[in-house]
Amino acid sequence: MSLLVVGSVAFDTVRTPFGEITEGLGGSATYFATAASFFTDVRLVAVVGEDFPKEHIAFLKQRRIDLAGLEHSMGKTFRWRGEYGYQLNEAKTLQTDLNVFQTFHPKLPFSYTNTPYVFLANIDPVLQLDVMKQVSSAKLIACDTMNFWIDGNKEGLVKTLAGVDILIINEGETRALSGEFNLVKAANKILSLGPKALIVKRGEYGALMFNGKKIFTVPAYPLESVFDPTGAGDSFAGGLMGYLAQNAPDGRIGDKVLRQAAIYGSVMASFCVEAFSLDRMRSLTQDDIRRRYAEFVDLSSYEYQT
Amino acid sequence: MSLLVVGSVAFDTVRTPFGEITEGLGGSATYFATAASFFTDVRLVAVVGEDFPKEHIAFLKQRRIDLAGLEHSMGKTFRWRGEYGYQLNEAKTLQTDLNVFQTFHPKLPFSYTNTPYVFLANIDPVLQLDVMKQVSSAKLIACDTMNFWIDGNKEGLVKTLAGVDILIINEGETRALSGEFNLVKAANKILSLGPKALIVKRGEYGALMFNGKKIFTVPAYPLESVFDPTGAGDSFAGGLMGYLAQNAPDGRIGDKVLRQAAIYGSVMASFCVEAFSLDRMRSLTQDDIRRRYAEFVDLSSYEYQT
Repeated sequence: MSLLVVGSVAFDTVRTPFGEITEGLGGSATYFATAASFFTDVRLVAVVGEDFPKEHIAFLKQRRIDLAGLEHSMGKTFRWRGEYGYQLNEAKTLQTDLNVFQTFHPKLPFSYTNTPYVFLANIDPVLQLDVMKQVSSAKLIACDTMNFWIDGNKEGLVKTLAGVDILIINEGETRALSGEFNLVKAANKILSLGPKALIVKRGEYGALMFNGKKIFTVPAYPLESVFDPTGAGDSFAGGLMGYLAQNAPDGRIGDKVLRQAAIYGSVMASFCVEAFSLDRMRSLTQDDIRRRYAEFVDLSSYEYQT
Repeated sequence: MSLLVVGSVAFDTVRTPFGEITEGLGGSATYFATAASFFTDVRLVAVVGEDFPKEHIAFLKQRRIDLAGLEHSMGKTFRWRGEYGYQLNEAKTLQTDLNVFQTFHPKLPFSYTNTPYVFLANIDPVLQLDVMKQVSSAKLIACDTMNFWIDGNKEGLVKTLAGVDILIINEGETRALSGEFNLVKAANKILSLGPKALIVKRGEYGALMFNGKKIFTVPAYPLESVFDPTGAGDSFAGGLMGYLAQNAPDGRIGDKVLRQAAIYGSVMASFCVEAFSLDRMRSLTQDDIRRRYAEFVDLSSYEYQT
């Protein structure tokens, strides 16, 4: 089944203790779409400026990502500059130039409006809601958000969440959105706002998935070298949603398929952080993905009989 | 098989956002022994002062813990006072009165010297090494340590580690001991010092277990109410070593039994934090433990076939 992502395409300038990259390809929609493209057909809605090079277009096309929804605007592409210390879980933003993303108002090509699977990356919840209206027959909608919207437009966000099936956010966002420090209590509050499932991303510690009945602990892959955590969260969402679009075609997300999807999310995030920008995705194969899923099993399985 | 623990018995005064307790029963040996007593026979070596009440002795005896090695000294029992914020992973120490623990020099009763399973809780590595010499026929030795010894007597600690089978420490200690930030690299360095397995405790995020060939991600139980994290690490070690003493009688710790033991460690830690002091252990049953193990399976299992 086709999967739509609405979000950002950007140039990221990133410094970590292990190196740096200047104006590498980045953005939430880029990471998500690329990760998901290993599982299903992806349609992308985003905006770039006049400076967006053909080679990036060629890469996305090579991943068979539908770019009918990629708007080319007068002006410059969104740029982000940040750095990470050894504690790679949190980026320090040094500069944000929204440029053409500032006035981004996602408008779906007609060919996209029947897309059954939808991921709303971290954009203004008002725009997220507007996209939801444009894909009124969607079977499954997931979304991300950030503290900027939780603090700045909680009312709008709550309206959006009422129509969302899966919310994928990090620990700090979970606490800010719910007003609860304890994650179990926080999850119960957030699920009461509408989502059928909440996935709390915890960086190198993996993730927790809540569906109101059960909790699933999603392991992270302990890597010997993490080069750049930028995009890990969107790659996680891309792996998860891509797997669901491929394996839950009726849009019903049972516990079993959702758990497997979360593991694939963690698999794709583990590849993402192995190199700067999307570079690890450029050489990634289906065999690599299968092998790492098997490594996750090896990493987290134990005898269930006592 | 019998299991020996050498460590502290203390009175803890603890404040958390959820309440406080004054001079509750605590100490590394107390938490370890109590958790392990649900799995195997435990022998305890520690020291208390003249102020140690009979009711605590009665509790430990009721748990069938052998107290032949509990020394009663002139003076006061070790006291610790600390507090936790909402971020329950790290305690802030407000006061430490070592009292009789200051001059503690563990001397094993003759009846203990043939104990096959040994846990050296966080004490001076010189004393740990001395205990190891007193149990020269031990089949399996595990130990804990802390930054105070890593910074203050690394040479002594390294000598101790050469004879240790399992090292159980937290993330910060792993980094300090190895000089490596990345945990995979850190584990490889530490395993080269002697231990056959390293378990890195990560508080609410669970633990990572390294044996030089494989890594195992140990989940933590997401609790809706955590009252007091004091003793969680020692309860983890107690569950783990108690299970090994019960189920790996030849002292050989294969990957399979070690993974199960780590889950039992996480099970016992999850009970520990549900109440102040050892209070949750007072009413705990074998059925509670079996049920929580099953909940761990439910929490962390997924389809292995893709």
